[in-house]
Amino acid sequence: MKMALKEARKALKKNEVPIGAVIVRDNKVIAKAHNLREKNNLATSHAEILAIQKANKKIKSWRLDSCTLYVTIEPCPMCAGAIIQSRIKHVVYGARDLKAGAHASVLNLFELPFNHKVGVEFGVMEEESADIIKQFFKKLRNK
Amino acid sequence: MKMALKEARKALKKNEVPIGAVIVRDNKVIAKAHNLREKNNLATSHAEILAIQKANKKIKSWRLDSCTLYVTIEPCPMCAGAIIQSRIKHVVYGARDLKAGAHASVLNLFELPFNHKVGVEFGVMEEESADIIKQFFKKLRNK
Repeated sequence: MKMALKEARKALKKNEVPIGAVIVRDNKVIAKAHNLREKNNLATSHAEILAIQKANKKIKSWRLDSCTLYVTIEPCPMCAGAIIQSRIKHVVYGARDLKAGAHASVLNLFELPFNHKVGVEFGVMEEESADIIKQFFKKLRNK
Repeated sequence: MKMALKEARKALKKNEVPIGAVIVRDNKVIAKAHNLREKNNLATSHAEILAIQKANKKIKSWRLDSCTLYVTIEPCPMCAGAIIQSRIKHVVYGARDLKAGAHASVLNLFELPFNHKVGVEFGVMEEESADIIKQFFKKLRNK
Protein backbone atom coordinates (compact mmCIF):
# COMPACT_ATOMS: atom_id res chain seq x y z
CA MET A 1 0.00 0.00 0.00
CA LYS A 2 2.97 2.31 0.55
CA MET A 3 3.88 1.87 -3.09
CA ALA A 4 0.29 2.60 -4.14
CA LEU A 5 0.45 5.82 -2.09
CA LYS A 6 3.70 6.71 -3.84
CA GLU A 7 1.87 6.24 -7.15
CA ALA A 8 -0.96 8.47 -5.90
CA ARG A 9 1.57 11.20 -5.10
CA LYS A 10 2.88 10.99 -8.69
CA ALA A 11 -0.68 11.68 -9.90
CA LEU A 12 -0.98 14.61 -7.47
CA LYS A 13 2.14 16.21 -8.99
CA LYS A 14 0.52 15.92 -12.44
CA ASN A 15 -2.73 17.54 -11.24
CA GLU A 16 -4.59 14.27 -11.64
CA VAL A 17 -7.05 12.98 -9.01
CA PRO A 18 -4.40 11.26 -6.84
CA ILE A 19 -5.13 7.54 -6.82
CA GLY A 20 -2.47 4.86 -7.09
CA ALA A 21 -2.58 1.09 -7.65
CA VAL A 22 -0.13 -1.78 -7.44
CA ILE A 23 -0.55 -5.43 -8.46
CA VAL A 24 1.38 -8.16 -6.67
CA ARG A 25 1.89 -11.79 -7.65
CA ASP A 26 3.95 -14.29 -5.63
CA ASN A 27 5.19 -11.44 -3.44
CA LYS A 28 6.49 -9.58 -6.48
CA VAL A 29 5.17 -6.28 -7.81
CA ILE A 30 4.17 -6.89 -11.43
CA ALA A 31 2.44 -3.54 -12.13
CA LYS A 32 2.23 0.00 -10.72
CA ALA A 33 0.07 2.82 -12.04
CA HIS A 34 -1.63 6.06 -11.13
CA ASN A 35 -4.64 7.88 -12.46
CA LEU A 36 -3.87 9.62 -15.77
CA ARG A 37 -7.33 10.53 -17.04
CA GLU A 38 -6.52 14.14 -17.88
CA LYS A 39 -3.06 13.52 -19.34
CA ASN A 40 -4.16 10.55 -21.46
CA ASN A 41 -7.56 12.11 -22.21
CA LEU A 42 -9.08 8.67 -21.73
CA ALA A 43 -12.08 8.04 -19.47
CA THR A 44 -10.65 4.58 -18.81
CA SER A 45 -7.23 5.74 -17.52
CA HIS A 46 -7.99 5.11 -13.84
CA ALA A 47 -5.09 3.74 -11.75
CA GLU A 48 -6.65 0.25 -11.45
CA ILE A 49 -7.36 -0.13 -15.20
CA LEU A 50 -3.84 0.98 -16.12
CA ALA A 51 -2.34 -1.39 -13.53
CA ILE A 52 -4.47 -4.31 -14.80
CA GLN A 53 -3.43 -3.61 -18.40
CA LYS A 54 0.25 -3.47 -17.38
CA ALA A 55 -0.08 -6.71 -15.39
CA ASN A 56 -1.82 -8.44 -18.34
CA LYS A 57 1.08 -7.43 -20.58
CA LYS A 58 3.70 -8.38 -17.99
CA ILE A 59 2.45 -11.95 -17.51
CA LYS A 60 1.13 -12.23 -21.10
CA SER A 61 -2.35 -13.22 -19.95
CA TRP A 62 -5.66 -11.48 -19.34
CA ARG A 63 -6.14 -13.70 -16.28
CA LEU A 64 -4.68 -12.38 -13.04
CA ASP A 65 -5.97 -15.31 -10.91
CA SER A 66 -3.27 -15.32 -8.27
CA CYS A 67 -2.84 -11.54 -8.00
CA THR A 68 -3.65 -9.00 -5.32
CA LEU A 69 -4.46 -5.42 -6.30
CA TYR A 70 -3.69 -2.63 -3.84
CA VAL A 71 -5.40 0.69 -4.49
CA THR A 72 -5.56 3.81 -2.34
CA ILE A 73 -9.29 4.48 -2.88
CA GLU A 74 -12.38 2.24 -3.16
CA PRO A 75 -12.77 1.23 -6.83
CA CYS A 76 -15.54 2.72 -8.97
CA PRO A 77 -17.88 0.33 -10.86
CA MET A 78 -15.69 0.40 -13.99
CA CYS A 79 -12.60 -0.61 -12.00
CA ALA A 80 -14.44 -3.08 -9.77
CA GLY A 81 -15.84 -4.62 -12.98
CA ALA A 82 -12.34 -4.80 -14.47
CA ILE A 83 -11.10 -6.50 -11.28
CA ILE A 84 -13.81 -9.17 -11.70
CA GLN A 85 -13.14 -9.46 -15.46
CA SER A 86 -9.40 -9.99 -14.90
CA ARG A 87 -10.08 -12.65 -12.21
CA ILE A 88 -7.99 -10.83 -9.59
CA LYS A 89 -8.01 -12.89 -6.38
CA HIS A 90 -7.83 -10.19 -3.76
CA VAL A 91 -8.29 -6.43 -3.50
CA VAL A 92 -6.97 -4.23 -0.71
CA TYR A 93 -8.00 -0.58 -0.64
CA GLY A 94 -7.39 2.39 1.62
CA ALA A 95 -10.21 4.90 1.92
CA ARG A 96 -13.85 4.70 0.87
CA ASP A 97 -15.30 6.73 -2.01
CA LEU A 98 -18.74 7.70 -0.78
CA LYS A 99 -19.84 9.13 -4.15
CA ALA A 100 -18.77 6.35 -6.52
CA GLY A 101 -17.36 3.41 -4.56
CA ALA A 102 -18.48 -0.01 -5.79
CA HIS A 103 -17.69 -2.03 -2.68
CA ALA A 104 -18.93 -0.37 0.51
CA SER A 105 -20.40 2.94 -0.63
CA VAL A 106 -22.86 3.16 -3.57
CA LEU A 107 -23.14 -0.60 -4.07
CA ASN A 108 -21.24 -3.84 -3.52
CA LEU A 109 -20.43 -5.26 -6.92
CA PHE A 110 -18.27 -7.98 -5.39
CA GLU A 111 -21.16 -9.71 -3.62
CA LEU A 112 -23.27 -10.08 -6.78
CA PRO A 113 -23.49 -13.53 -8.45
CA PHE A 114 -20.84 -13.12 -11.15
CA ASN A 115 -18.67 -16.00 -12.32
CA HIS A 116 -15.69 -14.82 -10.26
CA LYS A 117 -15.41 -14.00 -6.58
CA VAL A 118 -12.92 -11.45 -5.26
CA GLY A 119 -11.75 -11.15 -1.66
CA VAL A 120 -11.83 -7.55 -0.43
CA GLU A 121 -10.05 -5.88 2.49
CA PHE A 122 -10.18 -2.18 3.26
CA GLY A 123 -9.13 0.55 5.64
CA VAL A 124 -5.42 -0.13 5.08
CA MET A 125 -3.53 3.20 5.35
CA GLU A 126 -6.96 4.77 5.10
CA GLU A 127 -6.02 8.16 6.49
CA GLU A 128 -3.02 8.69 4.23
CA SER A 129 -5.03 7.60 1.19
CA ALA A 130 -7.86 10.01 1.98
CA ASP A 131 -5.48 12.86 2.89
CA ILE A 132 -3.89 12.96 -0.57
CA ILE A 133 -7.33 13.30 -2.16
CA LYS A 134 -8.32 16.07 0.28
CA GLN A 135 -5.06 17.87 -0.53
CA PHE A 136 -5.88 17.68 -4.25
CA PHE A 137 -9.39 19.12 -3.91
CA LYS A 138 -8.20 21.84 -1.53
CA LYS A 139 -5.60 22.89 -4.13
CA LEU A 140 -8.28 22.78 -6.83
CA ARG A 141 -10.66 25.02 -4.84
CA ASN A 142 -7.88 27.54 -4.15
CA LYS A 143 -7.15 27.92 -7.85
CA MET B 1 -26.84 -1.36 -34.72
CA LYS B 2 -26.18 -2.96 -38.09
CA MET B 3 -22.63 -1.65 -37.92
CA ALA B 4 -22.24 -3.00 -34.37
CA LEU B 5 -23.40 -6.41 -35.65
CA LYS B 6 -20.82 -6.19 -38.44
CA GLU B 7 -18.18 -5.57 -35.75
CA ALA B 8 -19.47 -8.58 -33.80
CA ARG B 9 -19.04 -10.74 -36.92
CA LYS B 10 -15.42 -9.58 -37.17
CA ALA B 11 -14.87 -10.84 -33.60
CA LEU B 12 -16.54 -14.16 -34.49
CA LYS B 13 -14.07 -14.69 -37.35
CA LYS B 14 -11.21 -14.15 -34.87
CA ASN B 15 -12.68 -16.68 -32.40
CA GLU B 16 -13.46 -13.93 -29.89
CA VAL B 17 -16.79 -13.72 -28.05
CA PRO B 18 -18.68 -11.88 -30.81
CA ILE B 19 -19.71 -8.50 -29.45
CA GLY B 20 -19.51 -5.27 -31.41
CA ALA B 21 -19.87 -1.59 -30.47
CA VAL B 22 -20.21 1.70 -32.33
CA ILE B 23 -20.18 5.27 -31.01
CA VAL B 24 -22.10 7.99 -32.81
CA ARG B 25 -21.91 11.79 -32.37
CA ASP B 26 -23.95 14.28 -34.40
CA ASN B 27 -25.10 11.43 -36.68
CA LYS B 28 -21.50 10.52 -37.44
CA VAL B 29 -19.77 7.29 -36.43
CA ILE B 30 -16.68 8.29 -34.44
CA ALA B 31 -15.62 4.82 -33.24
CA LYS B 32 -16.18 1.15 -34.04
CA ALA B 33 -14.73 -1.83 -32.16
CA HIS B 34 -15.22 -5.48 -31.38
CA ASN B 35 -14.17 -7.67 -28.49
CA LEU B 36 -10.47 -8.56 -28.67
CA ARG B 37 -9.80 -10.00 -25.24
CA GLU B 38 -7.99 -13.10 -26.44
CA LYS B 39 -5.99 -11.45 -29.24
CA ASN B 40 -4.92 -8.48 -27.09
CA ASN B 41 -4.59 -10.63 -23.96
CA LEU B 42 -6.17 -7.78 -22.02
CA ALA B 43 -9.11 -8.29 -19.65
CA THR B 44 -10.22 -4.77 -20.55
CA SER B 45 -10.43 -5.31 -24.34
CA HIS B 46 -14.23 -5.56 -24.48
CA ALA B 47 -15.90 -3.94 -27.51
CA GLU B 48 -17.34 -1.03 -25.47
CA ILE B 49 -14.02 -0.16 -23.75
CA LEU B 50 -12.13 -0.24 -27.06
CA ALA B 51 -14.82 1.92 -28.72
CA ILE B 52 -14.75 4.44 -25.83
CA GLN B 53 -10.95 4.66 -26.01
CA LYS B 54 -11.10 5.19 -29.80
CA ALA B 55 -13.80 7.87 -29.42
CA ASN B 56 -11.78 9.63 -26.68
CA LYS B 57 -8.81 9.76 -29.04
CA LYS B 58 -10.91 10.80 -32.02
CA ILE B 59 -12.47 13.82 -30.31
CA LYS B 60 -9.43 14.45 -28.07
CA SER B 61 -11.50 14.39 -24.90
CA TRP B 62 -12.38 11.83 -22.23
CA ARG B 63 -15.89 13.29 -22.16
CA LEU B 64 -18.35 11.77 -24.63
CA ASP B 65 -21.31 13.89 -23.45
CA SER B 66 -23.24 14.05 -26.68
CA CYS B 67 -22.53 10.50 -27.85
CA THR B 68 -24.66 7.38 -28.25
CA LEU B 69 -23.07 3.95 -27.86
CA TYR B 70 -24.60 1.02 -29.73
CA VAL B 71 -23.59 -2.43 -28.53
CA THR B 72 -24.92 -5.84 -29.52
CA ILE B 73 -25.06 -7.26 -25.95
CA GLU B 74 -25.98 -5.78 -22.56
CA PRO B 75 -22.82 -4.24 -21.05
CA CYS B 76 -21.03 -5.93 -18.13
CA PRO B 77 -20.31 -3.84 -14.98
CA MET B 78 -16.85 -2.82 -16.26
CA CYS B 79 -18.31 -1.51 -19.52
CA ALA B 80 -21.39 0.03 -17.92
CA GLY B 81 -19.03 1.76 -15.48
CA ALA B 82 -16.88 3.02 -18.38
CA ILE B 83 -20.03 4.34 -20.07
CA ILE B 84 -20.84 6.34 -16.91
CA GLN B 85 -17.20 7.46 -16.51
CA SER B 86 -17.04 8.73 -20.10
CA ARG B 87 -20.36 10.64 -19.69
CA ILE B 88 -21.97 8.91 -22.67
CA LYS B 89 -25.49 10.27 -23.11
CA HIS B 90 -27.31 7.27 -24.46
CA VAL B 91 -26.79 3.52 -24.77
CA VAL B 92 -28.65 1.22 -27.14
CA TYR B 93 -28.08 -2.52 -26.86
CA GLY B 94 -29.42 -5.62 -28.56
CA ALA B 95 -29.72 -8.74 -26.42
CA ARG B 96 -29.54 -9.20 -22.65
CA ASP B 97 -26.66 -10.94 -20.90
CA LEU B 98 -28.33 -12.90 -18.13
CA LYS B 99 -25.04 -13.90 -16.48
CA ALA B 100 -23.22 -10.57 -16.36
CA GLY B 101 -25.47 -7.79 -17.67
CA ALA B 102 -25.32 -4.57 -15.67
CA HIS B 103 -28.58 -3.01 -16.86
CA ALA B 104 -31.48 -5.46 -16.82
CA SER B 105 -29.94 -8.78 -15.74
CA VAL B 106 -27.65 -9.03 -12.68
CA LEU B 107 -28.10 -5.39 -11.59
CA ASN B 108 -28.96 -1.96 -12.96
CA LEU B 109 -25.88 0.21 -12.58
CA PHE B 110 -27.50 3.02 -14.55
CA GLU B 111 -30.20 3.69 -11.95
CA LEU B 112 -27.77 4.13 -9.05
CA PRO B 113 -27.02 7.66 -7.79
CA PHE B 114 -23.80 8.38 -9.68
CA ASN B 115 -22.88 11.86 -10.90
CA HIS B 116 -23.93 11.05 -14.48
CA LYS B 117 -27.17 9.68 -15.85
CA VAL B 118 -27.29 7.56 -19.02
CA GLY B 119 -30.38 6.90 -21.12
CA VAL B 120 -30.73 3.22 -22.02
CA GLU B 121 -32.73 1.51 -24.75
CA PHE B 122 -32.63 -2.21 -25.51
CA GLY B 123 -34.03 -5.02 -27.62
CA VAL B 124 -32.85 -3.40 -30.86
CA MET B 125 -31.92 -6.18 -33.32
CA GLU B 126 -32.06 -8.45 -30.30
CA GLU B 127 -32.40 -11.71 -32.18
CA GLU B 128 -29.47 -11.10 -34.53
CA SER B 129 -27.27 -9.97 -31.63
CA ALA B 130 -28.08 -13.08 -29.58
CA ASP B 131 -27.77 -15.41 -32.60
CA ILE B 132 -24.12 -14.52 -33.23
CA ILE B 133 -23.27 -15.34 -29.61
CA LYS B 134 -25.16 -18.67 -29.81
CA GLN B 135 -23.27 -19.48 -33.01
CA PHE B 136 -19.97 -18.82 -31.23
CA PHE B 137 -20.70 -21.06 -28.26
CA LYS B 138 -22.05 -23.83 -30.50
CA LYS B 139 -18.78 -23.73 -32.46
CA LEU B 140 -16.82 -23.77 -29.20
CA ARG B 141 -18.70 -26.81 -27.89
CA ASN B 142 -18.17 -28.70 -31.14
CA LYS B 143 -14.42 -28.23 -30.91
